[in-house]
Amino acid sequence: MNDKALEKLSYGLYLISTRWEGRSAGCIVNTLTQATASPARVTVTINKENETTRLLQQSGVFTATVLSQEASLGLIGRFGFRSSRDFDKFAGWRTAVGKNGVPYVDEQMVARFECRVVGQMDADTHIVFLAELLEGELIGDGEPMSYAYYHQVKKGRTPPQAPSYIRQQESDSSC
Amino acid sequence: MNDKALEKLSYGLYLISTRWEGRSAGCIVNTLTQATASPARVTVTINKENETTRLLQQSGVFTATVLSQEASLGLIGRFGFRSSRDFDKFAGWRTAVGKNGVPYVDEQMVARFECRVVGQMDADTHIVFLAELLEGELIGDGEPMSYAYYHQVKKGRTPPQAPSYIRQQESDSSC
Repeated sequence: MNDKALEKLSYGLYLISTRWEGRSAGCIVNTLTQATASPARVTVTINKENETTRLLQQSGVFTATVLSQEASLGLIGRFGFRSSRDFDKFAGWRTAVGKNGVPYVDEQMVARFECRVVGQMDADTHIVFLAELLEGELIGDGEPMSYAYYHQVKKGRTPPQAPSYIRQQESDSSC
Repeated sequence: MNDKALEKLSYGLYLISTRWEGRSAGCIVNTLTQATASPARVTVTINKENETTRLLQQSGVFTATVLSQEASLGLIGRFGFRSSRDFDKFAGWRTAVGKNGVPYVDEQMVARFECRVVGQMDADTHIVFLAELLEGELIGDGEPMSYAYYHQVKKGRTPPQAPSYIRQQESDSSC
């Protein structure tokens, strides 16, 4: 298995947020994918150890926002490399709350989706969620950030909890 | 629901092929996504009506190849807009056969993966397959084709069976 082959898969970068019993959590993923057109549904795969996954399994609702190319490494570092168990990741950013009661970051993003989980599949270290899109809108003018852009232009790294993590990468923090 | 928001999701383009009882089938998808790093697994969502899905559910194995930016609209049209029920899509291209016995197109591609299905989730019109990567290698020097590149640079269209199909699009053929 040549790991270089896996680097040829293309993705965007997304922030998945949820809220349950007064606690909010969010993390960065590259796994959001439209699964069906009618009804409009997506899949998103998230690490079981993420606080976002724990709360999402309780709440059954999440908001997905599409990162803009202008999204800062500070924002990605906050949501992608630290744990929502430790502190409030949303503090310090411009945020809003959707109809689903879930907070989302309302800056450095280009689009937003409110989603309701309708199925899930166990994938060992991760869970594949299938979710219905309840609402979707544009919330910024920028171009969406691709995973390739994040690595090649922004020189970003990948956290160990990501599906696409390769052990040789330098990484010193947890998601 | 603003369909423009869905256009902000980023994908690559892939050819999924399989073989069962002497019949081969293949189709183009934008839904291949790495799901876990260890073991290396992917998800891929395919329309239930595709002949590829029917054969894949029998064989349990497939090959996924990553389209290069140089992939022709002729190849994409053949595999993305016509049905493997009607004719042999592989005829006329340079092909090879993997250890899994599945033929794949060995040109206009940058990488290849041999996969074994280990789980599936029903998604109404589509099925989300979870598959283990048995082998992966680079098979070309080009850049991977992103879905954005396909639409914006190659001026390609989306077939009605695709998860990302929007009714307003012009489309006159079936996958």
